[in-house]
Amino acid sequence: VRILRIPLLAVAAQIVITAAPALMPLPVKVEFGSGWLKLDRDSGVMSASGCPDPRVERALARFAARIARQTGVPIGVPLAVECGAVSDDESYQLDVTPTSARLKAASGAGALHGLATLAQLIEPGPDGFRIAAVHIEDRPRFPWRGLMLDVSRHWIPVEVVERNLDAMAAVKLNVFHWHLSDDQGFRVESKRFPRLQQFGSDGDFYTQDQIRQVVEYARDRGIRVVPEFDIPGHTQSWLAAYPELATVPGTYSIGRTWGAYDPVMDPTREEVYEFLDTFIGEMAALFPDAYFHIGGDEVNPKQWDASAQVQAFLKEHDLKDAHALQAYFNQRIQKILEKYGKLMIGWDEILHPDLPASIVIQSWRNQQALADAAKQGRRGILSWGYYLDHLSPASYHYGIDPLNGAQLTTEQAANVLGGEACMWAEYVNAETVDSRIWPRAAAIAERLWSAKEVTNVDSMYARLEVVSRNLEWTGIQHRAGYAPMLDRLTGGHSAEPLRILADASEAQGLRVRSRGKKNTSLTPLNRFVDAVRPESESVRALEHADLAVLREQFGRWAGNDARFQALAAENPMLTELKPLSKDLSALGAMGLRILGYLAGSGPAPKAWIAAQNAELTRIQRPNAEVVLAAARPVKMLLDRLAKR
Amino acid sequence: VRILRIPLLAVAAQIVITAAPALMPLPVKVEFGSGWLKLDRDSGVMSASGCPDPRVERALARFAARIARQTGVPIGVPLAVECGAVSDDESYQLDVTPTSARLKAASGAGALHGLATLAQLIEPGPDGFRIAAVHIEDRPRFPWRGLMLDVSRHWIPVEVVERNLDAMAAVKLNVFHWHLSDDQGFRVESKRFPRLQQFGSDGDFYTQDQIRQVVEYARDRGIRVVPEFDIPGHTQSWLAAYPELATVPGTYSIGRTWGAYDPVMDPTREEVYEFLDTFIGEMAALFPDAYFHIGGDEVNPKQWDASAQVQAFLKEHDLKDAHALQAYFNQRIQKILEKYGKLMIGWDEILHPDLPASIVIQSWRNQQALADAAKQGRRGILSWGYYLDHLSPASYHYGIDPLNGAQLTTEQAANVLGGEACMWAEYVNAETVDSRIWPRAAAIAERLWSAKEVTNVDSMYARLEVVSRNLEWTGIQHRAGYAPMLDRLTGGHSAEPLRILADASEAQGLRVRSRGKKNTSLTPLNRFVDAVRPESESVRALEHADLAVLREQFGRWAGNDARFQALAAENPMLTELKPLSKDLSALGAMGLRILGYLAGSGPAPKAWIAAQNAELTRIQRPNAEVVLAAARPVKMLLDRLAKR
Repeated sequence: VRILRIPLLAVAAQIVITAAPALMPLPVKVEFGSGWLKLDRDSGVMSASGCPDPRVERALARFAARIARQTGVPIGVPLAVECGAVSDDESYQLDVTPTSARLKAASGAGALHGLATLAQLIEPGPDGFRIAAVHIEDRPRFPWRGLMLDVSRHWIPVEVVERNLDAMAAVKLNVFHWHLSDDQGFRVESKRFPRLQQFGSDGDFYTQDQIRQVVEYARDRGIRVVPEFDIPGHTQSWLAAYPELATVPGTYSIGRTWGAYDPVMDPTREEVYEFLDTFIGEMAALFPDAYFHIGGDEVNPKQWDASAQVQAFLKEHDLKDAHALQAYFNQRIQKILEKYGKLMIGWDEILHPDLPASIVIQSWRNQQALADAAKQGRRGILSWGYYLDHLSPASYHYGIDPLNGAQLTTEQAANVLGGEACMWAEYVNAETVDSRIWPRAAAIAERLWSAKEVTNVDSMYARLEVVSRNLEWTGIQHRAGYAPMLDRLTGGHSAEPLRILADASEAQGLRVRSRGKKNTSLTPLNRFVDAVRPESESVRALEHADLAVLREQFGRWAGNDARFQALAAENPMLTELKPLSKDLSALGAMGLRILGYLAGSGPAPKAWIAAQNAELTRIQRPNAEVVLAAARPVKMLLDRLAKR
Repeated sequence: VRILRIPLLAVAAQIVITAAPALMPLPVKVEFGSGWLKLDRDSGVMSASGCPDPRVERALARFAARIARQTGVPIGVPLAVECGAVSDDESYQLDVTPTSARLKAASGAGALHGLATLAQLIEPGPDGFRIAAVHIEDRPRFPWRGLMLDVSRHWIPVEVVERNLDAMAAVKLNVFHWHLSDDQGFRVESKRFPRLQQFGSDGDFYTQDQIRQVVEYARDRGIRVVPEFDIPGHTQSWLAAYPELATVPGTYSIGRTWGAYDPVMDPTREEVYEFLDTFIGEMAALFPDAYFHIGGDEVNPKQWDASAQVQAFLKEHDLKDAHALQAYFNQRIQKILEKYGKLMIGWDEILHPDLPASIVIQSWRNQQALADAAKQGRRGILSWGYYLDHLSPASYHYGIDPLNGAQLTTEQAANVLGGEACMWAEYVNAETVDSRIWPRAAAIAERLWSAKEVTNVDSMYARLEVVSRNLEWTGIQHRAGYAPMLDRLTGGHSAEPLRILADASEAQGLRVRSRGKKNTSLTPLNRFVDAVRPESESVRALEHADLAVLREQFGRWAGNDARFQALAAENPMLTELKPLSKDLSALGAMGLRILGYLAGSGPAPKAWIAAQNAELTRIQRPNAEVVLAAARPVKMLLDRLAKR
């Protein structure tokens, strides 16, 4: 498996590393030496004596536990860690020789990153586990590398959050953006306004003790926690508790369907600011990070347009429209945040000349807004292109660079702080969320950490597959739910034909699912699409397989439908999959016929090829909210045949 | 899959039910009617209005959530539950008609069991999920149906305990015996003696809040929690904290190796009883159950024999030996327990004429002791034959009946309260423990609940496989660790040849593992044997497969070694498996040759058959602490060939 060992420089473009060890994100500089540091019981002890940051000591203990599980060697790395005081500098330098390892970092955070890299360097060798002699210099390209998790639309318990924090640390993500309120749920205990959790959460909320626990857990892993309380729109769950905050009087209940709701807070009344001042004061004390996310996206002006009081307020304050009114609201909120020592961050709708330069814009609607803001001296982060809930392939996200296409000076570029992968929760719950974040978020993590020139997709996927498996046994459960969920669909019986269909399929995301039957937050996420992965590893392998392997797989697909239909005959959960299964078998038969033509000498009839292409186009449309990835290798072969 | 629907009576012997639904434990009486109750959104609401026990309401909410995950129907069972007041009567009656379901139970506990049965009855049908019309009358054969979990030798966190409680409730186990202290760890926070957890736990212990949480969690699911604090032996971890309790003065540290340790508490000193009085008083308040387990097993008399003070005490009190001294100790402890309103339970070594009739004996050394005790009017439970850590097949445990071979009167038989599956933790940890308890504990649960005559092993396995899969998605993780642990062994690469080897293997338990290299509590449980399951489902399927399936599988085995050796070449974690893999391929080749002889007309040479038998005998010995289950179907075919 060790194919290449090329010293990698930050300036080197398009270097392929498909080799072990699978480093992700790829460091700035990797120079392999000769020889190996062997890991065994007597090879040495770890010491963080040169580190004032106590987090490093705890990280070493976790590192030792990881090595023990992986290699069977309880303690065995002669590793010395030195680091500077706490600072923003996340750089580190790692030197492994055949006799020892030395990790030197500017700060505790840098040391944590260096340990994450060292963990990825451990590999089996002929005489035992070992680490290649190597010199690594590394630092992040962007300081803000985040994962946003929506816990409002579906409830995500503490232990799921914590295991995702572990996975984030493993790929050097350093900001956990916790989307804690939305129309569908308010998820934090407020002692000042307990109705928020009592009437806005269906009982699913984090206690303040749990919040502190998670913040501490994250901090220990070098991760900041930025809370988001989305205002003034997306607040239906607040209004269920405190209807007096709404622009239009009424009674409100927790949102159950998707999309932005009409009700919004009333920015014209002082009581609203008094409420938010008290609330923000309470939350500012709970979340120590300097930033406080106020959402601000998709404010529906319907209630404002309909309110005589709001219209009078606009005239009185010379505000020309709803966006101006929102800016007025944000200015007021910004002053409250300032009072509590917090910096404002919000979605790109909060961008407005009247707001101070200190605010940070999270760009979700397009990439241009971020560049424009940067040119105006505004700081921002990119989330457009990093929406995990669309279930796009990792390669798509990997191709999105926060500085793509923007002609920025160095100074302007520094305003682009980084980016955040976003996990919106319309179609995920505690059972499925891991599989929708990982491993794809690791590709985004590499985009935000590694050099701009590191863009080779084959290298990324080769390393991603290893990272994905390592994440699984270190705690995240993105692969664990697959088989049980498929077994559940068949009433507890072995689901081999269903697994073959699932392996050949890719789940579709928000765009496709929101077209389908009306889903609500109460709809169980227990269908085939929920079990199926966003990307099929086995189909990706087929795209690089030889013809014998393809023939075997096509044969399996061709024969699968008969077995599947027998399984589905009495099972309503499988009814929607009957056409899909038929298509898979058709793909198998088509693939076998193409292989037949390729094995023969003459060309295939043009009309036949055209008919197959038409059929492939039909098959590649979403069906039961999944797409048959299996069509891709068949299409590749058909194109090859057509070229003959 | 629906093969048989036979009304089952308690008196009917050897009735095969391989049909869905997979009921386990099998109820006393099942009479299927005609028609089905369909589950859909409009079919009705659940009500526990006839139940004074508030646990039933909460169980209904969990039941609704389960149905939603399974069927996609949020609420849809027109179910009325009635039950009597809290009592020991766990019986229930369930009536399902095409229009409604009615659950009537003597107590809240009975209602919980009825809901567990109803959950198992849900199955897919041609028009949607449904429940067959049925009349069920059910009650347990034994009142004490337990699972003992050792959390001392390896630490088991709260969430792992809780998911096991969920699984216990699903198969109607009703006693969680929590083995909380042993030589290798003291696992409960004591506020009176905090050194116990400070010096006896390596930091891994349950806080009192967590204990209360688990007890409440269990109670909510109809499960009693019986705590065990093992005294006066198996107390090395206590002595690490309070060496003054020991018979021989000295300094002690937490045990790291297996087996009973020499140090024991000193039964001759009043301070020891004062300590235990205070301690038991504290714990008695923490654990509300009427029973308190004092262990009492494997007391090593070495320190007592060596102590002049103890020897003098024996003479003075006319105690003839160590066993008499332990009985003296137990009498003192029994009086302390009585003071705190607790009944004593202990391992069979505590059986002694001087102890009152109220004590309960847990028989682990043999079955005869239990029968003898019952004849003497002593109550007891069986654990001999139910030791899960031996990794015996489910069929073995299933064949052990608490009343086997004993000639007891009805009155004497009533002294046998039931049994407990025991999960000792020398070779399990949080990652692997689920896979060592489940699904085998479900077979023991059936033995303890269902009629004595329900002994058909094929029926048991057919239902167990379904129960196993249903347990997985309802929370337990006994199947989830398999693939990631195998992937980990190969450094994060896809482990297909290793998986084929693992599927063909069965992990061996304590007896085999304690023969191997010296393991301690610090040895990581990360080897092949830890990933491999105790029973191979796929080999069991082969034992019932047709020749074509066998031929395909033999071919795969025959070809696997070449691929495996390539994988293992540079991987020390796989080195120990090289001979095993060779044997698997040899089995494949042997199987193919046997099939060749069977397909031919003539007999095979006798000498050849004898040679193959010898080879099979060799192959069936444990190797790398696993056994190749794959040998079984090959042996079956060879026997068939030999008979020709």
